[in-house]
Amino acid sequence: MTETVISSASKELVIGFDRPFVIIGERINPTGRKIMAEEMKNGDYSRVESDAIAQVKAGAHMLDVNAGIPLADEPKILAEVLQLVQSLTDVPLSIDSSIIEALEAGLAVYQGKALVNSVTGEEENLERVLPLIKKYGAAVVAISNDESGISEDIDVRFDVAKKIVERASDYGIPACDVVVDPLVMPIGAINKAGQQVLKLIHRLRSELKVNTTCGASNISFGLPNRHGFNGAFISMAIQAGMTSAITNPLHSEVVSASMGADVMLGKDPDCARWIKRFREPAAEGARVRGTGRRSRRRSPG
Amino acid sequence: MTETVISSASKELVIGFDRPFVIIGERINPTGRKIMAEEMKNGDYSRVESDAIAQVKAGAHMLDVNAGIPLADEPKILAEVLQLVQSLTDVPLSIDSSIIEALEAGLAVYQGKALVNSVTGEEENLERVLPLIKKYGAAVVAISNDESGISEDIDVRFDVAKKIVERASDYGIPACDVVVDPLVMPIGAINKAGQQVLKLIHRLRSELKVNTTCGASNISFGLPNRHGFNGAFISMAIQAGMTSAITNPLHSEVVSASMGADVMLGKDPDCARWIKRFREPAAEGARVRGTGRRSRRRSPG
Repeated sequence: MTETVISSASKELVIGFDRPFVIIGERINPTGRKIMAEEMKNGDYSRVESDAIAQVKAGAHMLDVNAGIPLADEPKILAEVLQLVQSLTDVPLSIDSSIIEALEAGLAVYQGKALVNSVTGEEENLERVLPLIKKYGAAVVAISNDESGISEDIDVRFDVAKKIVERASDYGIPACDVVVDPLVMPIGAINKAGQQVLKLIHRLRSELKVNTTCGASNISFGLPNRHGFNGAFISMAIQAGMTSAITNPLHSEVVSASMGADVMLGKDPDCARWIKRFREPAAEGARVRGTGRRSRRRSPG
Repeated sequence: MTETVISSASKELVIGFDRPFVIIGERINPTGRKIMAEEMKNGDYSRVESDAIAQVKAGAHMLDVNAGIPLADEPKILAEVLQLVQSLTDVPLSIDSSIIEALEAGLAVYQGKALVNSVTGEEENLERVLPLIKKYGAAVVAISNDESGISEDIDVRFDVAKKIVERASDYGIPACDVVVDPLVMPIGAINKAGQQVLKLIHRLRSELKVNTTCGASNISFGLPNRHGFNGAFISMAIQAGMTSAITNPLHSEVVSASMGADVMLGKDPDCARWIKRFREPAAEGARVRGTGRRSRRRSPG
């Protein structure tokens, strides 16, 4: 039963096969957000603050922190933002950058055991990222592409993931600290992307026995009603074996889809988390007081 | 590849393993709807009319029609309502009653090949319903309970379903015309209900090779945010192999969950049905005109 332990200074979180699904909030990321990028570049992290608080309030169990801004001092900004977010919330963080120096600057200031996002199957990347993971005792997201790019053949993507897990092991990093991202492609462009990724998630879990994560929102790129589609995808990915996702907890469809899947798969005994999250205070009161509001809730819901 | 063909006077619908999921609208049912029951008893079918039209507009591919009102002439009312609904819409109907005389009265007036809801594994019920199904060339929903009630053991429920399929065959009804209802129990009361029903759906499809349906809303009975939960359930049930459900298409979560699952499983080539259903006219126009509204749609959806 694979368990990946991530932590902040005061809180531990486990990503695991028999654990509730872990939502990693995706919002602290200036990619495609011009105003946020400009603000962060100028040292104004007010939007980071509000995004951090809102996501945790909405149900994020971890937050992904990315400071990828062209022509900015990414190592410095990432370290500052990580410290800021750690001062605001006790949820563990994912340190997200494609720049090694930024990952190292982030790891140096991070309190707890971080999830580093990410390492790929490219030789140079493996050789630079894995020693850092070992040095700081972190966990890492392994993205299943390599020098040849992203294969549409899921067997190739599985093999890349397997290679990363093996290479991590050579560096003394246990398989439970490698969380594989099978890569979610836009289904509007690649029609088979849904079936492929469900199969790959299942193989990663049953054969490679690793935890998994993904950029869930990618699946619906270019489609209308993206939130609705993301919900269907997340429930199905969890059923196939996915244990976490980097996604937007501010969309209620995402939270319902993942928490509902947890209930369905027996990961939320007595529906306790579901009831706590969605109980309507007014309806509760109505039940106690026995007023007419109760009649809103009919059986054939 | 099992296919169950249902029809109205002018339209054929196929429930099948490789077909888009079939939503059977549940609303034309006076159970628990006091006003509707009273109206129907008095020959006022205005609410039936509006429910029929609204459900088809919302995406129902079939409509379930139930006229179960205590102390009313159910055979007469059911026959009248079926004729009325067939005059309003061309979607095929499910004739829903536990009273044999009502089923026969319904079948006698129905135009096309109906889905009869339902037959159970009880001897007396089998002996009375199956000859009717054969006589009218209908298809039938088989509910997997028998004299001993509803078993919590899914192996027992599987065996009951198998018995019904075999008995139907003795009457000359092919297995493809038996749509099995595995029985969905409220997960708030029976925590294992989710895992059990997913396993049973999978067995019914892979071993008994039959189409399946269920009263999907039952799963969330007693829980808050029922529509959100029903969405997660429906996506996961489709992934397990379920091919239709009696549910409420007026809840957008149900439609997103089922149509999203179809896209995910390759049953909606080029996402054509999804895009047609959810395309926002305003956003479309914005794309053409290149106005600022386009910026509403960001990638990390």
